[in-house]
Amino acid sequence: MIKTISILGVTGSIGSQALDVIKNNPEHFKLGAVSAGRNIKQLQEVLRDFNPPLVSVQDENDAAALQKDYPHIEFTYGEQGLNQVAVYNSDLLLTAILGSVGLRPTLMAIEAGIDIALANKETLVAAGDIVMNAARENNVNIIPVDSEHSALFQCLKGENEKEISQIIITASGGSFRDLNRTALHSVTLKDALNHPNWSMGQKITIDSATMMNKGFEVIEAKHLFDVEVSQITTLLHKESIVHSMVEFIDNSIMAQLGNSDMRTAIQYAFTHPKRIHKNNPLSMNELTQLNFKPMDFDRFKMLKFAYDALEAGGTLPTVMNAANEFAVAEFLQGRIKFLEIEEIVEERMLQHNNIQNPDLETILELDARYKSNMR
Amino acid sequence: MIKTISILGVTGSIGSQALDVIKNNPEHFKLGAVSAGRNIKQLQEVLRDFNPPLVSVQDENDAAALQKDYPHIEFTYGEQGLNQVAVYNSDLLLTAILGSVGLRPTLMAIEAGIDIALANKETLVAAGDIVMNAARENNVNIIPVDSEHSALFQCLKGENEKEISQIIITASGGSFRDLNRTALHSVTLKDALNHPNWSMGQKITIDSATMMNKGFEVIEAKHLFDVEVSQITTLLHKESIVHSMVEFIDNSIMAQLGNSDMRTAIQYAFTHPKRIHKNNPLSMNELTQLNFKPMDFDRFKMLKFAYDALEAGGTLPTVMNAANEFAVAEFLQGRIKFLEIEEIVEERMLQHNNIQNPDLETILELDARYKSNMR
Repeated sequence: MIKTISILGVTGSIGSQALDVIKNNPEHFKLGAVSAGRNIKQLQEVLRDFNPPLVSVQDENDAAALQKDYPHIEFTYGEQGLNQVAVYNSDLLLTAILGSVGLRPTLMAIEAGIDIALANKETLVAAGDIVMNAARENNVNIIPVDSEHSALFQCLKGENEKEISQIIITASGGSFRDLNRTALHSVTLKDALNHPNWSMGQKITIDSATMMNKGFEVIEAKHLFDVEVSQITTLLHKESIVHSMVEFIDNSIMAQLGNSDMRTAIQYAFTHPKRIHKNNPLSMNELTQLNFKPMDFDRFKMLKFAYDALEAGGTLPTVMNAANEFAVAEFLQGRIKFLEIEEIVEERMLQHNNIQNPDLETILELDARYKSNMR
Repeated sequence: MIKTISILGVTGSIGSQALDVIKNNPEHFKLGAVSAGRNIKQLQEVLRDFNPPLVSVQDENDAAALQKDYPHIEFTYGEQGLNQVAVYNSDLLLTAILGSVGLRPTLMAIEAGIDIALANKETLVAAGDIVMNAARENNVNIIPVDSEHSALFQCLKGENEKEISQIIITASGGSFRDLNRTALHSVTLKDALNHPNWSMGQKITIDSATMMNKGFEVIEAKHLFDVEVSQITTLLHKESIVHSMVEFIDNSIMAQLGNSDMRTAIQYAFTHPKRIHKNNPLSMNELTQLNFKPMDFDRFKMLKFAYDALEAGGTLPTVMNAANEFAVAEFLQGRIKFLEIEEIVEERMLQHNNIQNPDLETILELDARYKSNMR
C-alpha cells in the first residue's frame, strides 16, 4: 500500500529531506498536500517534481501567481491554508514547519484522525498536554522525527513504557561544545551556525549551540513517553552516533545508532512499525570510538531552564519557547550577542506568572506576546 | 505467576548466577529440578537454600549418599538423571551444563514442550539444525542467555527478522587481546584464565582467549536468528559494554548495553518478554568511552575456522567443537601450549570428511570420538 504523506514546511531542511525519502521510494510513498512559506523558487521545484494536489503558501499574492502557472494544482494561503493542508486526506502528516504556527494545524490533523510525524518542536514544548490528550482521544499516533526521539521510539519498540528506568538523550554539544563560558562572550553568528555533526536549519543550529534544543527534547520526551522528569537524563556524546538510549528496570540499556542522516529518522517515521531499505549505512569502519560525558548544567544553562520549565509545567514552557524564538531571531539578525539569548530567556521566565492547565488560546496568546517581545 | 525454572548445571558459573536471580526474586521464580556434576559440597548449599524437588548428580554413589541426608528430595544420576531433570514439569529449563552432554536432555525438554533458556553452547554449535527444527516443531522458545545473543534477542524485540541487514557481535578480545601472534607463543595457563571483563568458567575463558568462543557465538547466532553467514559481523570492543548490535535494512542500528553482569541476561531469559527490577545498573559515569575495531582474522584464526565450519555446515562444526573441547582440556591440564589449541582444531577440521545433514547419533558419535582425541 502506498502511503500518502502531507508536509507542513516542505521547503525547510526536514521537508526537503522528507521529499528525498518519498522520491527514493515511489513504491511506498506519494506526496499529499504541502505548505511552504515564502521560498517560492524552491517550492516550484517541488511542484514540478511531485505535482502535489494541494499547496499552501504564506502570501495570498504568491498563491494567486502560482495558480496561473499550475492550474491543475489547488493553491491556498495563510493560516487557513495550513489548516487545509493539515486535514487533507492523507495517511500521515509531517509537521516540519517552524514555530508555534504549526500548533493549530497539528491539532486539527489529530482531530481529523491523521497520524502525525512530528518534527515541529513547538507542538509539544508549548502545548504538550493538549496535543497528547488530543492524540489519545482520537487514537492518533504521534511518531517522532527528531533523531533523538526516533531513537527512543525505536528503543521502546516491543517494550512496555512502565518498565523504563531512565531515558538517556544524547547531545552533541553543538557548535561551542569545546568552549567554556568565558569564551562564549566573543562567539559570532557564523561560529554558531557551524554545527559539527548535523546539517539543519538556522534556528535549530543556534538552539543546539545554546543547548535550548536539548531542553526542548527533554520536554518533548516527557510528553511522548510516559516518564517522570527525574527519569530523563542528558549525556554529552560528541560523535552523534548513539542517537539516544533507554535504560530499563532490569539494567538493560537499548540504544539506537546510525550516522547523522536525518532521512533515517524521517523514513522510519513514515514506515513504522516496518522498515524499508535505505542506501546510507554507518560503516563499521566509522565506528571506532564513542565518547560520553555527563552534562554540565552550569556550562549549559538553557538546558537547566528547560528542566525547570518542565518541572513547573503550566505556561512556563510556552514562555520559555517563545522568548527563545524572539532571542534567537534577534541573534540571527545580528542585534544581540550569543550569551544574551539565555539572558533574555531567563529574564522572561523569571518575570512570568505561571498559569497551570492553560487552554490553547492562552498558550497561543502568550506565545505571540513573548515572541514579539511584548510582556 | 511464579515461574518454575529447572537448571542443568546448577553448580557452574551460569547456574550459580541463575540461583542469585531466583533467590532475589521469590515473587517471580522458584527452582525446579537441578543437575550437578561432582561438586557435591556446592550442591548441598543449593539443596539447603532452595530445596529443589528433583536432583541429578553425575555419580550413583553421590546420589545414594545425598538421598540419606535429604530424604524429602528425589535424587537420580548420570545421563538418565539429566534427562529426568530436563523433562521435569517446569516453565523453563536453563541449560547451563558444559559440553555436548547437554544436547540430548535439551532435545528431550524441547519435545516435552518446555521453553529453553540456552546457555549450553554445544547445543547449537554441534547440532543447531536439529535443535532449531525440534523447537519449531514443538512450538518451543529458545531464549539465549549468552550476553551477546541476549543483546541480539533484545535488539530484535518487536522487529521483523526479515528486516535485518547485519548482526554485529562484539568481542572483548579475551585475555590476550593486546598481544600479537609472536607473543602468544609464550603465554601461560594462568595468563589465559585472566579475562579482562567477564567472570566466567575456565573453559569459556580459554575459548575467549582463543576467540573460539566468538566463533561459537557466530554459529549460534546463525541458528537463533534467520540470517545468512555473510550477515554476521564480529567487532572488537574491549569495554564489553555494547553486548551486540543489529543493523536493519533502513540503516538503523539497535544495540544493547550494560555492565558485565551475566545475571542481567539470565534474568531477561527468565522474564522475557517482560522485564523486572534489578539492582546493578551501569552508571552513566562509567560510560565514558567505547572503542571498536574491525576483527583481525589473521590474529584470531579460530574465529576464521568457525566461519569456515559454518559455511561448510554438516558435521564440521561438531568436529571443530569436539576437537576444541579436547584441546582446551589438554591446555587446562598443562599438557599443551596455548597456540597448540588452534593447531589441533585446524588439523582435525582439515582431516574430517564432512557429512551433510547428519542425524543426532552421527553427531554424538563424532563428538565423543573427537573429544577423546580418537579419529
